[in-house]
Amino acid sequence: MEDIERIKTYLLRLQNTICSALELHETSVKFEEDAWQRPTGGGGLTRVLADGDTFEQAGVNFSHVFGDKMPAPATALRPELENCNFHALGVSLVIHPRNPYVPTAHANVRYFFAEKQNHPSVWWFGGGFDLTPYYPFEQDVVEWHQYASDACQAFGPDVYPRYKKWCDDYFYLKHRDETRGVGGLFYDDLNIWEFERCFEFMQSVGNHFCKAYLPIVQRRKNNTYGQRQREFQLYRRGRYVEFNLLYDRGTMFGLQSGGRTESILMSLPPVVNWRYHWSPEPGSPEAELYENYLKPREWINR
Amino acid sequence: MEDIERIKTYLLRLQNTICSALELHETSVKFEEDAWQRPTGGGGLTRVLADGDTFEQAGVNFSHVFGDKMPAPATALRPELENCNFHALGVSLVIHPRNPYVPTAHANVRYFFAEKQNHPSVWWFGGGFDLTPYYPFEQDVVEWHQYASDACQAFGPDVYPRYKKWCDDYFYLKHRDETRGVGGLFYDDLNIWEFERCFEFMQSVGNHFCKAYLPIVQRRKNNTYGQRQREFQLYRRGRYVEFNLLYDRGTMFGLQSGGRTESILMSLPPVVNWRYHWSPEPGSPEAELYENYLKPREWINR
Repeated sequence: MEDIERIKTYLLRLQNTICSALELHETSVKFEEDAWQRPTGGGGLTRVLADGDTFEQAGVNFSHVFGDKMPAPATALRPELENCNFHALGVSLVIHPRNPYVPTAHANVRYFFAEKQNHPSVWWFGGGFDLTPYYPFEQDVVEWHQYASDACQAFGPDVYPRYKKWCDDYFYLKHRDETRGVGGLFYDDLNIWEFERCFEFMQSVGNHFCKAYLPIVQRRKNNTYGQRQREFQLYRRGRYVEFNLLYDRGTMFGLQSGGRTESILMSLPPVVNWRYHWSPEPGSPEAELYENYLKPREWINR
Repeated sequence: MEDIERIKTYLLRLQNTICSALELHETSVKFEEDAWQRPTGGGGLTRVLADGDTFEQAGVNFSHVFGDKMPAPATALRPELENCNFHALGVSLVIHPRNPYVPTAHANVRYFFAEKQNHPSVWWFGGGFDLTPYYPFEQDVVEWHQYASDACQAFGPDVYPRYKKWCDDYFYLKHRDETRGVGGLFYDDLNIWEFERCFEFMQSVGNHFCKAYLPIVQRRKNNTYGQRQREFQLYRRGRYVEFNLLYDRGTMFGLQSGGRTESILMSLPPVVNWRYHWSPEPGSPEAELYENYLKPREWINR
């Protein structure tokens, strides 16, 4: 329980740090808070900023759910976890900026712990961060991946390439043959190192998010754009919805296990368009996204 | 094969009839057609009307896919169908009107056939239609269900109640504890009657769709509305997206089995909003929808 308290303390501080940093880009709106309880154990603190100048919607959620019985969907593939005491805690965020030149960002760090009598306890860490540009700048993507690599640096030279590839594989829309964006890091079931080292990795990933994202926000948030750019942004946001509802394990697990719907679905963009059979004109800036960014690519020299 | 040709002829005529009837509500736009081929057998004819005065988007799709090997996702739960020759054909439509007083409508009729050497052949019919109002009128819903009941009349007194209930059960968003709309009919795996009778039922359901929907369109399409009604419509369309991507078997099967993505996802509305933790004011017309319409209810006296 001491470990869980330490992780919880870190996560709540991370949530605060991120919300404060994002608010510096807003003149008139702030994050609003909803504390919620899970009837069968635990709860969370959802923080959402809506209708900002810079951020059309940003959600930064903490949750810590626990109980003496794992939700059924979670044990379907892991029957050994049935009838375990469990704790699942994490911070998850999705930021939908207003300006189409600022990419959407997602980050998550989480910890899972389970035990039952006469069995060794089970735990793992998971998380990562990934970026979804509409009108990408190569500089932004390279720097984003540089920070992702920096976050992994102290943990071995193979960590960034492994979790970068996992991210490309995970955030992939099979029915579109597109990656969701330009990736970053994704990891799950992490317990190959001792607990302290894993916890340090969680902190390194969490702490690198703002370093990686905010310079891009700062650099692009005042770019001039018009209706064309806005429409493309709204169209591409449709892909974000498709990914989150069709493929994202966290979303499905959350909804199936009776998580708080509004906190889970804050990941969905505030305004979205679908257009039947649309594709960008060859050679246009919109086509550039598809051709050079929505396929896995090595962004930094290692 | 003769059966399949007869069904195909009916389906293509139904698609024509419905498209022509919908076009009567438009002054300047028409359905556009895309014929597509499935690399491993069959194809379809997708017809989409976009940016109409009455219909913001309407898709009426015919498809007939076949082959000598069932797509893997389809045989996961039915291993007896592995290595079968199969045919799957149907018409599927989703209509997103512009005016928030006109409900969204969905209809589908389909037929499945499979055989392999030394085994009896397998076939069934499926389909139905259901209505999703934003600002419902009781008269519209009652009449809609009356037509649904009429479609079933000649097939026995228990048919409407059974398929009405199946529709309520199927179009249900568990994570919202809401039905998608006010229902109608849903049936699947239908082969309890002889083939001819089942085919007649398909035709009865198909032919009743326009009768049930167009009077509502006619009655409400010129209702005055403002920004408030439009915003509520866009917000509620989010539920439509959530249902189709999280729960709809046809969507998931289609995408997983390599169907044509753009034809499958024409069901998604052209413009959609999500708003964190929004709920209607008690006593408002928007609250009326939740309180009296998004729960299963008996609409007609039988």
